[in-house]
Amino acid sequence: MKKSSAESMLARELVILKLGGSVITMKKKPFYARTRTIRRIAKEISSALKNKLLRLIIVHGGGSFGHPLAKKYGIHLGFRDKRQLIGFAKTVQSMRKLSNIIVESLQGENVPAFPIQPSSITLQRNGRISSMWRVVLEDALSKGLIPVLWGDAVLDEDAGFTILSGDHIVSYLSEFLTPSKVLFATDVDGIYPSDPKMEGAKPFSEINSADLAKLAGHLTKCEHADVTGGMLGKIREILLITSKGIEVSVLNANKPGNVLRALLGENVGTLVKPQKVLFHE
Amino acid sequence: MKKSSAESMLARELVILKLGGSVITMKKKPFYARTRTIRRIAKEISSALKNKLLRLIIVHGGGSFGHPLAKKYGIHLGFRDKRQLIGFAKTVQSMRKLSNIIVESLQGENVPAFPIQPSSITLQRNGRISSMWRVVLEDALSKGLIPVLWGDAVLDEDAGFTILSGDHIVSYLSEFLTPSKVLFATDVDGIYPSDPKMEGAKPFSEINSADLAKLAGHLTKCEHADVTGGMLGKIREILLITSKGIEVSVLNANKPGNVLRALLGENVGTLVKPQKVLFHE
Repeated sequence: MKKSSAESMLARELVILKLGGSVITMKKKPFYARTRTIRRIAKEISSALKNKLLRLIIVHGGGSFGHPLAKKYGIHLGFRDKRQLIGFAKTVQSMRKLSNIIVESLQGENVPAFPIQPSSITLQRNGRISSMWRVVLEDALSKGLIPVLWGDAVLDEDAGFTILSGDHIVSYLSEFLTPSKVLFATDVDGIYPSDPKMEGAKPFSEINSADLAKLAGHLTKCEHADVTGGMLGKIREILLITSKGIEVSVLNANKPGNVLRALLGENVGTLVKPQKVLFHE
Repeated sequence: MKKSSAESMLARELVILKLGGSVITMKKKPFYARTRTIRRIAKEISSALKNKLLRLIIVHGGGSFGHPLAKKYGIHLGFRDKRQLIGFAKTVQSMRKLSNIIVESLQGENVPAFPIQPSSITLQRNGRISSMWRVVLEDALSKGLIPVLWGDAVLDEDAGFTILSGDHIVSYLSEFLTPSKVLFATDVDGIYPSDPKMEGAKPFSEINSADLAKLAGHLTKCEHADVTGGMLGKIREILLITSKGIEVSVLNANKPGNVLRALLGENVGTLVKPQKVLFHE
């Protein structure tokens, strides 16, 4: 490929799209992928790439392909016993199988989805990334490939091994690659001020990161710590991203067309606008 | 895991086992894995690990999962046209599928086989490895995991992308990890002085690397360049390995028991003894 071609790639807007585990798998059915939804989203991504010159990184969660094995073998607790080794290996393998389904659906729509296995390029320290070899990822982007990464079980310099969530990958990559936008495709309509399942609950259409940090600080003090429906961990990563001046959008990928519209630049969920603050835990 | 445990792992003998593409796939049937053979070999590996304290790295070839796609899209020729991107991505994905079968067969025998995707950790320059991130691989070994790598399509700083053969991975890793032995499991009984398919042809039971280099030099001058049955490229990598003072064994993995016996230290094919020489192309 000519140099000029790589340069024109680098001029394109960079977007990171996170596909939530709850969108692509069924939480209550272990190892069950929602293949119809995945195929629809693959089509939306393919359509977006045809209509807009983008560089795109896709990161997906583990959902019911990761949690059951990780729990069974205590992978999230770290390496304590040799008998966990097979469990670590099986968790990595299970996540590869889910990523196969995502990657093949995308390739089936002619998207040059290039899987990059997070456990091959990452070391953690007590559950946070200490090093990630991004050389291949960056070279792939410059060539027009669409890197696909996923939540994974990874080796840990302190704990032996730990879980690396898809959300964490997204916040880490955002710091180094400064995308123009990060999209979190979930199974809810956005970030809610209270329980999204309560009658009449409505998500913010826009919130600045300072207010989101206040909301999160308030939530951690509540008796039922995570009333936003499992959104608290995600909010933590979102605030890390916005602290770099990057816009984040949280949207519902179960609604057909939302991923496409979000990739084309429309606000279809909650838009989190960056405002420099520290996140108090 | 305690420090002492990692130290005792490092005291164990390190062996690299290469499983040839011709053993685990059918050359003439695209995307056909020889699952029965793979399962038998997985059992032999599991049995060896129960009988001998080893650190083990497994590298497998691409066989009929790699060649057809690489050829169709001209991946071996480098990146010339945007339309090759989907072919590159599909070749990587196809190799992941073959590695799934290997990894799952091993895990099924309780071997903690940990897949490490070569295209995630490797960059080449004109078809030879220029950098490979070995941090995860080395940490995995020290913890008692069995890393599994494979021939792959990888990004190339000069050519855009190129093929990385399993044999090349083995010679590269040998340089940095200095295993005590490297085993090439193939579909022939060893290295032959002439065509292995000729009547009465017998492999060397032992040959020193200087003589092997002479044989290879002779072969390249022949009209039918590769009369040893496709062994010439492999011989090149073998000579790189023996030049580091490492013993190499070439054996027939289609014969039940050979992989087990070789892992336990027996010579069941051609043993190549190191003798410092340069390989003249």
